Amino acid sequence: MSKDVRVTIWNEFRHEKTNEAVKKIYPQGMQAVIGRALEKAGGFRVRTATLDEPEHGLTEKVLDETDVLTWWGHLAHGEVKDEIVERVHKRVLEGMGLLVLHSGHFAKIFRKLLGTNCSLKWREAAEKERLWNLEPGHPITEGIGDFIELANAEMYGERFDIPTPDKLIFVSWFEGGEVFRSGCCWERGHGRIFYFRPGHETYPIYHHPEIQRVLANACRWAAPRIRKPDCCPHVPTPLEKIPTKTIDLQHVKP
Amino acid sequence: MSKDVRVTIWNEFRHEKTNEAVKKIYPQGMQAVIGRALEKAGGFRVRTATLDEPEHGLTEKVLDETDVLTWWGHLAHGEVKDEIVERVHKRVLEGMGLLVLHSGHFAKIFRKLLGTNCSLKWREAAEKERLWNLEPGHPITEGIGDFIELANAEMYGERFDIPTPDKLIFVSWFEGGEVFRSGCCWERGHGRIFYFRPGHETYPIYHHPEIQRVLANACRWAAPRIRKPDCCPHVPTPLEKIPTKTIDLQHVKP
Amino acid sequence: MSKDVRVTIWNEFRHEKTNEAVKKIYPQGMQAVIGRALEKAGGFRVRTATLDEPEHGLTEKVLDETDVLTWWGHLAHGEVKDEIVERVHKRVLEGMGLLVLHSGHFAKIFRKLLGTNCSLKWREAAEKERLWNLEPGHPITEGIGDFIELANAEMYGERFDIPTPDKLIFVSWFEGGEVFRSGCCWERGHGRIFYFRPGHETYPIYHHPEIQRVLANACRWAAPRIRKPDCCPHVPTPLEKIPTKTIDLQHVKP
Amino acid sequence: MSKDVRVTIWNEFRHEKTNEAVKKIYPQGMQAVIGRALEKAGGFRVRTATLDEPEHGLTEKVLDETDVLTWWGHLAHGEVKDEIVERVHKRVLEGMGLLVLHSGHFAKIFRKLLGTNCSLKWREAAEKERLWNLEPGHPITEGIGDFIELANAEMYGERFDIPTPDKLIFVSWFEGGEVFRSGCCWERGHGRIFYFRPGHETYPIYHHPEIQRVLANACRWAAPRIRKPDCCPHVPTPLEKIPTKTIDLQHVKP
Repeated sequence: MSKDVRVTIWNEFRHEKTNEAVKKIYPQGMQAVIGRALEKAGGFRVRTATLDEPEHGLTEKVLDETDVLTWWGHLAHGEVKDEIVERVHKRVLEGMGLLVLHSGHFAKIFRKLLGTNCSLKWREAAEKERLWNLEPGHPITEGIGDFIELANAEMYGERFDIPTPDKLIFVSWFEGGEVFRSGCCWERGHGRIFYFRPGHETYPIYHHPEIQRVLANACRWAAPRIRKPDCCPHVPTPLEKIPTKTIDLQHVKP
Repeated sequence: MSKDVRVTIWNEFRHEKTNEAVKKIYPQGMQAVIGRALEKAGGFRVRTATLDEPEHGLTEKVLDETDVLTWWGHLAHGEVKDEIVERVHKRVLEGMGLLVLHSGHFAKIFRKLLGTNCSLKWREAAEKERLWNLEPGHPITEGIGDFIELANAEMYGERFDIPTPDKLIFVSWFEGGEVFRSGCCWERGHGRIFYFRPGHETYPIYHHPEIQRVLANACRWAAPRIRKPDCCPHVPTPLEKIPTKTIDLQHVKP
Repeated sequence: MSKDVRVTIWNEFRHEKTNEAVKKIYPQGMQAVIGRALEKAGGFRVRTATLDEPEHGLTEKVLDETDVLTWWGHLAHGEVKDEIVERVHKRVLEGMGLLVLHSGHFAKIFRKLLGTNCSLKWREAAEKERLWNLEPGHPITEGIGDFIELANAEMYGERFDIPTPDKLIFVSWFEGGEVFRSGCCWERGHGRIFYFRPGHETYPIYHHPEIQRVLANACRWAAPRIRKPDCCPHVPTPLEKIPTKTIDLQHVKP
Repeated sequence: MSKDVRVTIWNEFRHEKTNEAVKKIYPQGMQAVIGRALEKAGGFRVRTATLDEPEHGLTEKVLDETDVLTWWGHLAHGEVKDEIVERVHKRVLEGMGLLVLHSGHFAKIFRKLLGTNCSLKWREAAEKERLWNLEPGHPITEGIGDFIELANAEMYGERFDIPTPDKLIFVSWFEGGEVFRSGCCWERGHGRIFYFRPGHETYPIYHHPEIQRVLANACRWAAPRIRKPDCCPHVPTPLEKIPTKTIDLQHVKP
């Protein structure tokens, strides 16, 4: 029951190496900050994986030992190999949880799972964001009040091109005048998916205690309830007796 | 308002060339029977397209003139070029309607739009199928009573690996003991998608007047309400004034 | 096909009689302004009905001739007779459309159809509201751009206690810092329901051309597709032969 | 975390007193059999309540100590006092779980929460029912295989007049030719609702080990995540500064 949830934190990990402002906020990468937050929250076994590792750090073995995968990417979505995307996609449909973070809205894996463009409106003005909590009874908002306020955020605005979420958890208000569906749940196959908007690399969003709380909650929520390989079974023997048939051709017109 | 709906009926068109039993039921291919049914229903301009034509018959020009595309495939899903799948996918998200028929559940375009495996249970025993009408007020069931009965059908059984439909229109009862979600609606991007289960090639399903009625209804329902290319706009100028900001670093721990 | 949609505009019609500011904006009541807007839009036959008429103006005969009912109430929800609420409820489930406007969120009929409290946060500060259009392809937003801006509005904020809408059309941004699901679609029975937030009595919201456009679009969208009385049929004769049975008691423990 | 879930099993408890066949199957009432099943499953504290007790056994005190309420009624829906229905309704919206069983589809509390007629087709022929499991990853189907088979069941057939379920768990196949959405989940307010079809009084359905398993699973699933009284807060002070306003009357036509 209360086994640790095994989380693999995937990060593109490029901005942190090249941009001084980002490096200052995330000297060891965002994955390190998110990882420490989960460890502090307790109940998780955390590992990280990044784009530039072999197989992007997502070998079959790593995925065998992953209950929930979190995904942050931005600059280099196109460098993620299709073969790895297929591999992760298969795992989610089998039951693995997936958290897609911020600019991960354009990640191949997110678009493949949702089937839409996942496009949106955007602006970088360090503006204020207030994420309103629409579902105070949902496990993802446990311990969160009426809203979360971020002093500085990149703006993402509607229309967000996604399938209607199964459950809409957060809606953001932006200082500059826009709104956004910032916390969205879906189920695909046997897996659970949570998209969580905040997280721009030049603002210290993943250091924020309430954002960390949501991430921990979401990793618990997305943990697999089942693991089940896909199949398309041929069942030649029916459960009920079917008499021998002749094909009815009454509607066939010459 | 009452302009004709331009429907392109896409068919793999292989079984009809090689299998004598199928040829007898569909001498000119299923597409011809479906096409005539729509023309008889009225309000449509119909064309057909098949796998073995150049670009599978789905050139940009053809799609420019297509409001609703219907899709039947079975043997040769793998032969459909990814480039054409991308093209159709883009069009659906922009607003074009899509009807996916029977074994089209495994078509690349269907899986790409839904993001799941779209797998199911199956059996060929010419058994009876009864499609129960769950939504008598929906445009797709106009003129259809409590159920449609087919004397002979291939069985498809649950679990059908699809995202929860926006609207579940038909549920099938099979003589051999299974059930299936046989009529399912989704919206993706600005386009509408309808999956309709009946249609096995060795039974004369598309000759059935009530099946033809559903197809015509569904083509009307899926007709575009809008056509809108995807974009991800950068809006540097906010609608509201944003004061100059300094980044708040209070939560950043060294 | 293109028969006029018969709309009955129901208004509590109390504020307009007692409050000078409201009287100035709506000298003949909101119903008159909404009615003229629909007539100008074309394709409607409009009548009005108000609380203080016998049977609140909603006799069986009036409802027989009503395709879509719009509902505005505020001060006097409690004065609406349960018997009339039952009558309207029955009609919606049979197929009649219903638009619930602004403070109608607390109307008996809305709560009866949705089953929840329909409570929300509120403030009167004449603040700016911007309704973002999430569904540019939906009939309700035809002719509406990215957003509608209102110079002065009462604020309604989340959490709005409603069942997850089938389709979320508008999300509002408020100057004071809140957000709200301002345009929501549901289907109940065979009827369609649209909740539309704007409309506070002391601001001239129903004079706004884009608000009028949404109201006309929504009345068209909500027009009945079917009218079908409820029943719970006893079908003693099965469609398939059922052999005579003895009750299996194997699991009954003494 | 692993505190016992406190379940109150509500039963009309009339058939069992007057009908000899029912008495034989449920000598102490269905509530006793369901209660023993939960106790055997473990993790529950069980009490029962019945129609003929004062306040139908559902005093405020009992509800204070109830996490999940299960509801079976049939003959005497009309005898359930509106005041008690209101009380239960309020509790569900605040977070209490509710399981509605079989003929409880017509219970006042179910119709009040869903807002629809909840009508269906029915037949008593002791026929075979097979409940297909559409969601093998859902907590409610834990330990259940592809389907549950019941040798004898009353038939319920579509169209079941309910709002589209958030999640459709079971679909039934009936020997006589019908289908039914037999396991449906909804959330209303902060509470979870599960409708579970099987349970006719003259067949020993609640003795069936897999039915008992589903009931225990569903009681765990429906346990409150939060308890939160409804409110509609007036928030006169905005989060953001709103300048003093004059009402814009540009659209008001004389």
